[in-house]
Amino acid sequence: MSAAAFIEKNKDRFLSELLDLLRIPSVSADPKFKNNVFEAANFVKESLEKAGADVAEICQTAGYPVVYGEKIIDPALPTVLVYGHYDVQPADPYELWDSPPFEPVIKKTTIHPEGAIFARGSADDKGQFYMHVKAFEAMMATGELTCNVKFMIEGEEEVGSDNLDAFVIANKERLKADVILISDTHMISMKDPSITVGLRGLTYMEVEVTGSNRDLHSGTYGGAVANPINVLCKMIASLKDENEHITIPGFYDNVQEVSDEQRQRLNEAPFDLNEYQGKLEIEAVHGEKGYTTIERVGIRPTLDVNGIWGGYTGEGAKTVLPSKAFAKISMRLVPGQDWQVIASLFENHFKAIAPKSVKVKVKTHHGGAPAVVSDSSVGYQAAEAAMEETFGKRPIPTREGGSIPIVALFQKELGSDPILFGFGLDTDALHSPNEHYGVTNYFIGIETIAAFFRHFRKLSQQ
Amino acid sequence: MSAAAFIEKNKDRFLSELLDLLRIPSVSADPKFKNNVFEAANFVKESLEKAGADVAEICQTAGYPVVYGEKIIDPALPTVLVYGHYDVQPADPYELWDSPPFEPVIKKTTIHPEGAIFARGSADDKGQFYMHVKAFEAMMATGELTCNVKFMIEGEEEVGSDNLDAFVIANKERLKADVILISDTHMISMKDPSITVGLRGLTYMEVEVTGSNRDLHSGTYGGAVANPINVLCKMIASLKDENEHITIPGFYDNVQEVSDEQRQRLNEAPFDLNEYQGKLEIEAVHGEKGYTTIERVGIRPTLDVNGIWGGYTGEGAKTVLPSKAFAKISMRLVPGQDWQVIASLFENHFKAIAPKSVKVKVKTHHGGAPAVVSDSSVGYQAAEAAMEETFGKRPIPTREGGSIPIVALFQKELGSDPILFGFGLDTDALHSPNEHYGVTNYFIGIETIAAFFRHFRKLSQQ
Repeated sequence: MSAAAFIEKNKDRFLSELLDLLRIPSVSADPKFKNNVFEAANFVKESLEKAGADVAEICQTAGYPVVYGEKIIDPALPTVLVYGHYDVQPADPYELWDSPPFEPVIKKTTIHPEGAIFARGSADDKGQFYMHVKAFEAMMATGELTCNVKFMIEGEEEVGSDNLDAFVIANKERLKADVILISDTHMISMKDPSITVGLRGLTYMEVEVTGSNRDLHSGTYGGAVANPINVLCKMIASLKDENEHITIPGFYDNVQEVSDEQRQRLNEAPFDLNEYQGKLEIEAVHGEKGYTTIERVGIRPTLDVNGIWGGYTGEGAKTVLPSKAFAKISMRLVPGQDWQVIASLFENHFKAIAPKSVKVKVKTHHGGAPAVVSDSSVGYQAAEAAMEETFGKRPIPTREGGSIPIVALFQKELGSDPILFGFGLDTDALHSPNEHYGVTNYFIGIETIAAFFRHFRKLSQQ
Repeated sequence: MSAAAFIEKNKDRFLSELLDLLRIPSVSADPKFKNNVFEAANFVKESLEKAGADVAEICQTAGYPVVYGEKIIDPALPTVLVYGHYDVQPADPYELWDSPPFEPVIKKTTIHPEGAIFARGSADDKGQFYMHVKAFEAMMATGELTCNVKFMIEGEEEVGSDNLDAFVIANKERLKADVILISDTHMISMKDPSITVGLRGLTYMEVEVTGSNRDLHSGTYGGAVANPINVLCKMIASLKDENEHITIPGFYDNVQEVSDEQRQRLNEAPFDLNEYQGKLEIEAVHGEKGYTTIERVGIRPTLDVNGIWGGYTGEGAKTVLPSKAFAKISMRLVPGQDWQVIASLFENHFKAIAPKSVKVKVKTHHGGAPAVVSDSSVGYQAAEAAMEETFGKRPIPTREGGSIPIVALFQKELGSDPILFGFGLDTDALHSPNEHYGVTNYFIGIETIAAFFRHFRKLSQQ
């Protein structure tokens, strides 16, 4: 039996195993899910063992563990390293989910007429890394595994992969591979398969603004004592000018220029502004002057408030002049920008613009480097060939707005370009309520991965 | 026995009864305390009955009831109407209270070396209106009640007294009185007794800013789609210019000018900026250019954000570009400004400044008119004489920043100036965690009220 036939025959089981994994609320950001994160790690280890790995280990780190697995069929053959993450984003606000986030259901949608799996982590990243486990199982079961394979599935991607650097550095030899596959990105559409070749970096900050030492009555003190919410709003507003250009001194200093030709090629990707606005139900896009939407998310850095809170937020009205206000603020970075440099530029600037009437604390949550990967390596060519085989169309190289900080780490420490082999869609509601992943995407992903191994072996030996 | 001796003899009971009332969490803003609000109304009714009222009734309204009580000793004698409220502000954030807000404890503080009662509502307004009930009881018990007395204690002051207008208009005849006493304000200090003669009004709004129809991944969409938090911050920031002057068109149009002479007299009240800043632990005050702190809270309108929320506010980091952001925004008004006109100016302006990339909803919570009361009426003179008797010092007339919207209502519908006969201090933490009310303030208040009745009878008959 071929690997493709094996996949076809085991579809129901492959799907139900993924649903089992999605039932584990492995939210790494929230300590109350700690046991579930460990449970998910164990699930991954057992899946690798069952699929046929010779080694399947839970490797402790200073945080959540990395699950490592391998199958070496012949040290002389090329080796593929698969990276993924078993942790997921927090699911709140829960009330906006149509079905509970950790009780996966399959429902048809306009974009997914054959059904999509609705659950936190379905696309990011359980549904995607698990395709590799299943492709490996199919290749093992049918004798079609043509390369050695290694797995490194971590549990801290959604909180900044704080302990992955140390793990990668300590295990350089063991992680040695000829290509790294990461399925944690999306394609343009099922009709327009694509491979991401650029990713933005991230610097994630939290700020606290304090006025008086206690909440005050807004009647007795309003107008005379700084209101930390008003002050915070003013400070945040001042971080961008009227052209939505970020005003932090030095912020753009090291941004690598993108040539006119590159910008032109980027803008050739199929994009329909009306459709984009229609799907989001917005009357207008909103971004930096002088750039298209594709450029704004692909090649330009940004600054977004991810959360804000302060004062009375319950029902009704409370005339309080609060003591404190808070915000979580993150910046997406582009090649040339160093996330730690940006964190300190932000901190210095934010403190400098605070009026004397308040105190300001600035904390760095985490960050990650931006990255550009080659679109001409052997790995890229194999991925291109595999997609062309399963989708019937040559994939387009694209730049994505999100961050996978470990891409730069792998480039530096493991010396090879990862292939961003994602099969999701940008409508999958990653990090949002009702996250989902197409059932078709899941299966075509498994098939394409199996095809990749074939092409990679062939192209590597040419 | 004199009323004063009776008060002295019954101190322990008078205090423990107040603590019982403070144990009832009668938060009118939050529906989950509904039964407790009714329970507090009943407590007040029973207290009036026990004190000796002929009539003590729970009067239904479209919202929470008004407790009405009266003792008519002789229709020919002057009549005193007491107004107060048995509802309290929400107590959150609970974690900032040193003791549970509805489990009153008495603790010594620097300002209250003889002890203060710590509980939500201790100063605002349970501890203050209850002084009138106890003074009434003492006068009844000792045959010293020299005027008729009526009580109107409502349960919706903290949510805008929405149903009080209708109640007052429907009960004009019954509420007829020669003077109205309201103890819901503070004095300068125990050494500098004062009576409030000016109050600011209030317009309380809530706004909702919506970007896309769902939360988005800030990497995939950040920079291209409006972030409602960033937009809200920019909109809020724009509501004040660099001089902290409010920019809403027409906002200041009807503000009554305060003469230079009045401003000068206002600034003669004892005020120590260093001490003020020291108590609040702030390095600098913060307000409208060209005005002193006393003026900023007394005679100038303001705009404060009382609460803001949106996006991810839990532990850790979430890279979300939220769909919605919210704020509660209130404006303190001064004589000449109409709260409903201001509400509509705000709404029109806020909608006008919204960029096309977001949708905005604006809701009016409630409001109240600003007021100035006479400092030469018979009632004022009696209050002055009573305070001089118990404090040993003539009280100073002051203007307070807070709002008691019913003052203007009483002036209009009942035709007499209320006396703002407050005994609290501005350090009592009204609307804040650790609200408290001095035990000494409570007892000196009861004595002063009893003295007021004596002086008012005498001055009315001159």
